[in-house]
Amino acid sequence: MKPSVGIIMGSQSDLPIMAEAAQFLEELGVGYELTVVSAHRTPQRMIDYAGSARERGIKVIVAGAGGAAHLPGMVASLTSLPVIGVPILSSNSIDGWDSILSILQMPSGIPVATVALNGGKNAGILAASMVGAFDQEVGKKMDEFKSSLREKVEKSASQIEEKGWKEILKK
Amino acid sequence: MKPSVGIIMGSQSDLPIMAEAAQFLEELGVGYELTVVSAHRTPQRMIDYAGSARERGIKVIVAGAGGAAHLPGMVASLTSLPVIGVPILSSNSIDGWDSILSILQMPSGIPVATVALNGGKNAGILAASMVGAFDQEVGKKMDEFKSSLREKVEKSASQIEEKGWKEILKK
Amino acid sequence: MKPSVGIIMGSQSDLPIMAEAAQFLEELGVGYELTVVSAHRTPQRMIDYAGSARERGIKVIVAGAGGAAHLPGMVASLTSLPVIGVPILSSNSIDGWDSILSILQMPSGIPVATVALNGGKNAGILAASMVGAFDQEVGKKMDEFKSSLREKVEKSASQIEEKGWKEILKK
Amino acid sequence: MKPSVGIIMGSQSDLPIMAEAAQFLEELGVGYELTVVSAHRTPQRMIDYAGSARERGIKVIVAGAGGAAHLPGMVASLTSLPVIGVPILSSNSIDGWDSILSILQMPSGIPVATVALNGGKNAGILAASMVGAFDQEVGKKMDEFKSSLREKVEKSASQIEEKGWKEILKK
Amino acid sequence: MKPSVGIIMGSQSDLPIMAEAAQFLEELGVGYELTVVSAHRTPQRMIDYAGSARERGIKVIVAGAGGAAHLPGMVASLTSLPVIGVPILSSNSIDGWDSILSILQMPSGIPVATVALNGGKNAGILAASMVGAFDQEVGKKMDEFKSSLREKVEKSASQIEEKGWKEILKK
Amino acid sequence: MKPSVGIIMGSQSDLPIMAEAAQFLEELGVGYELTVVSAHRTPQRMIDYAGSARERGIKVIVAGAGGAAHLPGMVASLTSLPVIGVPILSSNSIDGWDSILSILQMPSGIPVATVALNGGKNAGILAASMVGAFDQEVGKKMDEFKSSLREKVEKSASQIEEKGWKEILKK
Amino acid sequence: MKPSVGIIMGSQSDLPIMAEAAQFLEELGVGYELTVVSAHRTPQRMIDYAGSARERGIKVIVAGAGGAAHLPGMVASLTSLPVIGVPILSSNSIDGWDSILSILQMPSGIPVATVALNGGKNAGILAASMVGAFDQEVGKKMDEFKSSLREKVEKSASQIEEKGWKEILKK
Amino acid sequence: MKPSVGIIMGSQSDLPIMAEAAQFLEELGVGYELTVVSAHRTPQRMIDYAGSARERGIKVIVAGAGGAAHLPGMVASLTSLPVIGVPILSSNSIDGWDSILSILQMPSGIPVATVALNGGKNAGILAASMVGAFDQEVGKKMDEFKSSLREKVEKSASQIEEKGWKEILKK
Repeated sequence: MKPSVGIIMGSQSDLPIMAEAAQFLEELGVGYELTVVSAHRTPQRMIDYAGSARERGIKVIVAGAGGAAHLPGMVASLTSLPVIGVPILSSNSIDGWDSILSILQMPSGIPVATVALNGGKNAGILAASMVGAFDQEVGKKMDEFKSSLREKVEKSASQIEEKGWKEILKK
Repeated sequence: MKPSVGIIMGSQSDLPIMAEAAQFLEELGVGYELTVVSAHRTPQRMIDYAGSARERGIKVIVAGAGGAAHLPGMVASLTSLPVIGVPILSSNSIDGWDSILSILQMPSGIPVATVALNGGKNAGILAASMVGAFDQEVGKKMDEFKSSLREKVEKSASQIEEKGWKEILKK
Repeated sequence: MKPSVGIIMGSQSDLPIMAEAAQFLEELGVGYELTVVSAHRTPQRMIDYAGSARERGIKVIVAGAGGAAHLPGMVASLTSLPVIGVPILSSNSIDGWDSILSILQMPSGIPVATVALNGGKNAGILAASMVGAFDQEVGKKMDEFKSSLREKVEKSASQIEEKGWKEILKK
Repeated sequence: MKPSVGIIMGSQSDLPIMAEAAQFLEELGVGYELTVVSAHRTPQRMIDYAGSARERGIKVIVAGAGGAAHLPGMVASLTSLPVIGVPILSSNSIDGWDSILSILQMPSGIPVATVALNGGKNAGILAASMVGAFDQEVGKKMDEFKSSLREKVEKSASQIEEKGWKEILKK
Repeated sequence: MKPSVGIIMGSQSDLPIMAEAAQFLEELGVGYELTVVSAHRTPQRMIDYAGSARERGIKVIVAGAGGAAHLPGMVASLTSLPVIGVPILSSNSIDGWDSILSILQMPSGIPVATVALNGGKNAGILAASMVGAFDQEVGKKMDEFKSSLREKVEKSASQIEEKGWKEILKK
Repeated sequence: MKPSVGIIMGSQSDLPIMAEAAQFLEELGVGYELTVVSAHRTPQRMIDYAGSARERGIKVIVAGAGGAAHLPGMVASLTSLPVIGVPILSSNSIDGWDSILSILQMPSGIPVATVALNGGKNAGILAASMVGAFDQEVGKKMDEFKSSLREKVEKSASQIEEKGWKEILKK
Repeated sequence: MKPSVGIIMGSQSDLPIMAEAAQFLEELGVGYELTVVSAHRTPQRMIDYAGSARERGIKVIVAGAGGAAHLPGMVASLTSLPVIGVPILSSNSIDGWDSILSILQMPSGIPVATVALNGGKNAGILAASMVGAFDQEVGKKMDEFKSSLREKVEKSASQIEEKGWKEILKK
Repeated sequence: MKPSVGIIMGSQSDLPIMAEAAQFLEELGVGYELTVVSAHRTPQRMIDYAGSARERGIKVIVAGAGGAAHLPGMVASLTSLPVIGVPILSSNSIDGWDSILSILQMPSGIPVATVALNGGKNAGILAASMVGAFDQEVGKKMDEFKSSLREKVEKSASQIEEKGWKEILKK
């Protein structure tokens, strides 16, 4: 399947978080590619990646990074495709504030669609919703995904109402 | 022109920020609609708005709110279209932290594409980039917009290099 | 016993904190009901729950949620009963700030009575104090509860004064 | 009218914020009393006030204070009535964080129902909602107040949709 | 030995931190007393303790508490003796900010001499320095304590210079 | 009158805040000296000042500084007298956090008695309370000062109760 | 004079802050160049600038930017010369935290020498100190600059001691 | 090899972080010295160290400290050589904010080149880059180091693209 979502991360240590995006897209049947691109260590590679994304058929780029996280914003400066940024809580981070603010507070002209700290899965869902806004089949699967969230909560509510909270807490 | 972007805000006082999104979309020739929808004061109106967005042809919703800003997240829970959240610095806000965190830190399953504090214009640009990923004409205009940003900086650099910073500061 | 306090939470994972509210109400003999209602995953269920609370005899609703916690504020927008919000420290939270600010910083018109982070027990006490303000029997039990807090401290003080701090620390 | 809500503040400089609570209660026809009580400057007066509140017919106390705001928490320790705390942004405050955390983060056993920074009006609404949970007439007025919030937003939305945002912004 | 320093804490769980103050005073030969006094749970006990401190010969009070820590400030409002406040990192604290700001940001007229988070030992040293400013013998011991700090660092420096850092790190 | 309190500040721009300490001591009849000493610009002067303080009869040093405020802590490292630190909100400060944390969070062994942001007056009161703990006459004046605080609040309360809050707000 | 310091900024609006660096270098007789380079708007220009800096004789680069400030870190990734970063408080910044953390919290391998918020002058001083460590003449001027700082404080101290603080405050 | 970089730290407990600076310099063949110097415990030793650094041939000083970290700033006030500050996350720190702000927010005239929290290695790299700006051989090694960073990322990217992320995560 031709990839329509490009998933990149600053370091292989970000993989456990970013793989959640890939996993979701796979489940939804949305094509993706995934690799490591570092703004600080491989700037030329980043330029090449971002510059060729549109012509390679990519519709949205998901970029994750920790600390002073420049990858999402730099990629957003190098393409006019939408870029989703995933702040990642790295070691020696200051509770994740550094990563969040480095990604979120982009200057006028260069937005990054920022998701929650460590929000790899949510980045995948957001990417799929962009594709699904224009691709009816994916849009329908997104609606089904929403329904499945509701059903899980309703099941959990039924369980707690029937068994009582004391029974649930025992487990 | 049929709107493909829906711009909503929690209160009319948010209009100066959110109008920047509308302004950008207008310049780019992307259709939009704009109104006031309050999560806390008109919950049913919010549900109707979000629930009917896809069938009305909307591709992306831009929602701005201040303080404990629930509008973007609640709208995201009510549609499977992508939702862009704009944190707005309202009076009695705690430096904007309340609005940012209420919009950004969404739970797994319900992402909001958050932009910078008071980032109305960036929300418009991000919405246009999503449309432009699938609509070639809009995509081309986005590329031109990027170029215009570069040109402005280059002109500013030439000016400062030619005249010298002392001359510039005098103004 | 007919419930006068409604305890709800966004996810079953919040139960260990929210059960402390139920536990306190049980000890004080105040009727309650407890279930899972998610603002983001079951919005209609939330509307039904909040909309029918007053006629079901509920006097106060206790709502707990983590991250971008919209449940307490949304419920407060859907009923004119008092709503107590419990910020919960969830995984990937930013030290709880997200949950606290999403619940506390409600706009004018829609207050939420916010308690401390993970303050499930305090939410139960606050709910009981509201009931006790109008129900003499519960009010009396609340006075007794206050006395018991004092006695525990006095006992602890006596112990430390008699045995000396070195003896206490040894344990 | 016999007061059922007691409004107190640490200093006369807090009056502009706290008067909003009084104003709302007056509009709703809920009796109240209002005075200055300082935890740090008149501790005995605070003890007398809190200790006699229940027998004087008070159902809920609203206490506002800035900086290291101890009044709401200390009053909550001296009565078993519900206490609403209003964090006030005073001069030399650190963006209001000091007042918010001093009121919100009460230890187990002594909750304070905290509202938003400078949330005097919301404190009045919350107090009225507690009274209205048990007093049918007040409860009905609370429902009407909620409706009036909705109507204002709907009117604002109509206006913006009809006139267009450019017309509104001109004003 | 007649106590000149009064050490109090809001809860027995604060003892490990506050015992460090007692330990230091003992080493320096400064008399002290230590007990539990809770602002929120035993307000009358707190009033009696603070009110009688001067006539009992106490020269300085050291008060430790966590969360919304009102004990140091309330004691300072009840005596004109100097009060040292020790912010304590309790469970469910927001990284200690709540305790620090509740103690530090006292209003004009009622200062608390605040030390670092969990700074029990430093509170003891500060109390001893106050006594030592007026009591020559204690003052001399304080000078010796300062010298001992210097000697430890010099010894550590010699060791690292002689053995090299690789040898030290191996341990 | 021989000075028993030494007031120093890092820069003449801190004088408006630090003069409040001098003003209070003057009113209470406690001798003081006041000058400028900079940790960063006049380190040797700081060492001489701190080193000779005890033998010059100084009992307590009050030191104010903004930004990365090293003066209070460095003076505390150079004398065994008690040192009171006043965090000052300077231009380009980050809301005062830099000054507060640089003064408060001293390492074990070297405490600084920190007061609230811009708390010049409170530093004067705290210094007077230390002197008053050992000097009966000053102690008595401190008690009178405390009474005056109470009387001001009581007068303010009477006024608001008699005239009503609407009358007061009109002014 | 051949430039040994390169001063760049993300936008002409940063000039008032960054000109202070140029001003200082000019006073010290250290050659510099100054222009506008934007990481987000002119990425290729940034690459060219950083890539050619060493061969053009530049010894240190000073880069200032606000918000999600990527310029200093990206330049540091593109050259092995030392890079000094100046966080700038821009409009819609969150008190400067975004700029500070985006510049300071660089990942392992790519340091940026960060100075205080709006610290343009300090960046110039730091750059000069680097040059002065290897260039004896500049080093000597740096020593003289240090002396001038001391003299200003001593003069200020003399003035305040002679005239008294009341006289100084009158002005 | 004659040392051109002086590495100091406030306490031997900072060694694991600061040794990373030494390690890097060793690998690059840049001479260094390393010892313990405490601003608060050995002020005279600090003065001697900083005062003699230039004449001993030191080109740059790297100073690490935690909490209210005064060592880097005080050393910077005592020499006109460049000083690199390493904020260290110590026990009882408030998430490292205290150390960062105490080092970063230096007043005008006395800059400290601050690196990321626990950034010992980055401090070594920054020191080497300063030496390498003037010493061609070191400069060349710095370029090689940069290349090695790029190669590691490229290798990691190849691996993940060839094996697929599922294979990598399994390990």
